[in-house]
Amino acid sequence: MNDTQAPGGPADGTKRPDSSRRSERSRRAIYDAALALVAELGYGRTTIEGIAARAGVGKQTIYRWWPSKAAVLMEAFLDLADQAAGGDTGFPDTGFPDTGDLAADLRLVLRATVDEMNNPVYEAPTRALAAEGIVDPELGAQFVEKLLDPSLQLYVRRLRSAEAAGQLRAGIDHRIAVELLVGPLAHRWLLRTLPLTHEYADALVDYALAGLAPRD
Amino acid sequence: MNDTQAPGGPADGTKRPDSSRRSERSRRAIYDAALALVAELGYGRTTIEGIAARAGVGKQTIYRWWPSKAAVLMEAFLDLADQAAGGDTGFPDTGFPDTGDLAADLRLVLRATVDEMNNPVYEAPTRALAAEGIVDPELGAQFVEKLLDPSLQLYVRRLRSAEAAGQLRAGIDHRIAVELLVGPLAHRWLLRTLPLTHEYADALVDYALAGLAPRD
Repeated sequence: MNDTQAPGGPADGTKRPDSSRRSERSRRAIYDAALALVAELGYGRTTIEGIAARAGVGKQTIYRWWPSKAAVLMEAFLDLADQAAGGDTGFPDTGFPDTGDLAADLRLVLRATVDEMNNPVYEAPTRALAAEGIVDPELGAQFVEKLLDPSLQLYVRRLRSAEAAGQLRAGIDHRIAVELLVGPLAHRWLLRTLPLTHEYADALVDYALAGLAPRD
Repeated sequence: MNDTQAPGGPADGTKRPDSSRRSERSRRAIYDAALALVAELGYGRTTIEGIAARAGVGKQTIYRWWPSKAAVLMEAFLDLADQAAGGDTGFPDTGFPDTGDLAADLRLVLRATVDEMNNPVYEAPTRALAAEGIVDPELGAQFVEKLLDPSLQLYVRRLRSAEAAGQLRAGIDHRIAVELLVGPLAHRWLLRTLPLTHEYADALVDYALAGLAPRD
């Protein structure tokens, strides 16, 4: 993004409020158009020109704010994720619930993630971006760095707090523990092996925390 | 596949051996060409014509044996998976090692899967097919049914044997238990979150079997 003319309002503060409102409206229209097009056409056939036409803005408006198609889409996704997180899950700013009950907190977050993944507004563009990241290492790295990792870090922080409370085995690698929880969710969603349900989320939390082997 | 003229040899048995050898050579060349092209161009830009040209056969040869591009590719992958499984892992026909030591058997299989996923010959075409399956539900369903599920069923069978030996908690859903093991592997591979190593495979087996919470 060009930081002298960031979306959401000019940095120099000299423009009238009308201009700022127009910018905000354009930014939102561009995000919506980008997400809709990538869902309809796939990543490869989505173009800056197409986004501009669908959003009803000139393509120079887009080029002024973002250096590339990937950059527009990544911010559209960040915005979508922010909206999704600020919606019904109830943990936008705190990042992750921490009630002291690790299993309950994980079930809440994994169930909310299931709902998000099953939401058609979110699903089609996220599939398109994930698919492209799988074959394009550079885009994939951006996807992980900007979208996935920040959310995985919230899990890691919650596990650290659990460890401090004596609720984790000694020596557990938190990053791997997070993948044990979110990996099976993503696997079932991406590959559509079986329906992605709250029951599945609950079972994953149970199995990951208690293990598959009998306690003796 | 057209079952009256299956690759690998005509069904009527009237052709000379030379013809059968030529068929086998053509079949192999078509698989290799299909896998190479999908790795280079992606699924979308790979065509029957392109595969025929690369394999040095007429495109009618391909159409005689397979109804579609997806069908050729799926068989090329099945063949690749058979070769990979018959290679260094040592469990081609038995399906899955069963030494009585569940953790050791799972570590062996997950490490072999890591090696397979990190093998460039396997990696590029598999990524291309997985990416396409993520955005194309019909192809995705074929991918799961023909390639993924048969391999997941081998895990399920091994877990059943472990249950019979009293090595699993009561009431564990074997299908979900399998996803707890392979989901994080696929997640890390597909999204390239972190390097896919034997150590990661070992940790997954340990965490999945023993759980993350302390034993009290």
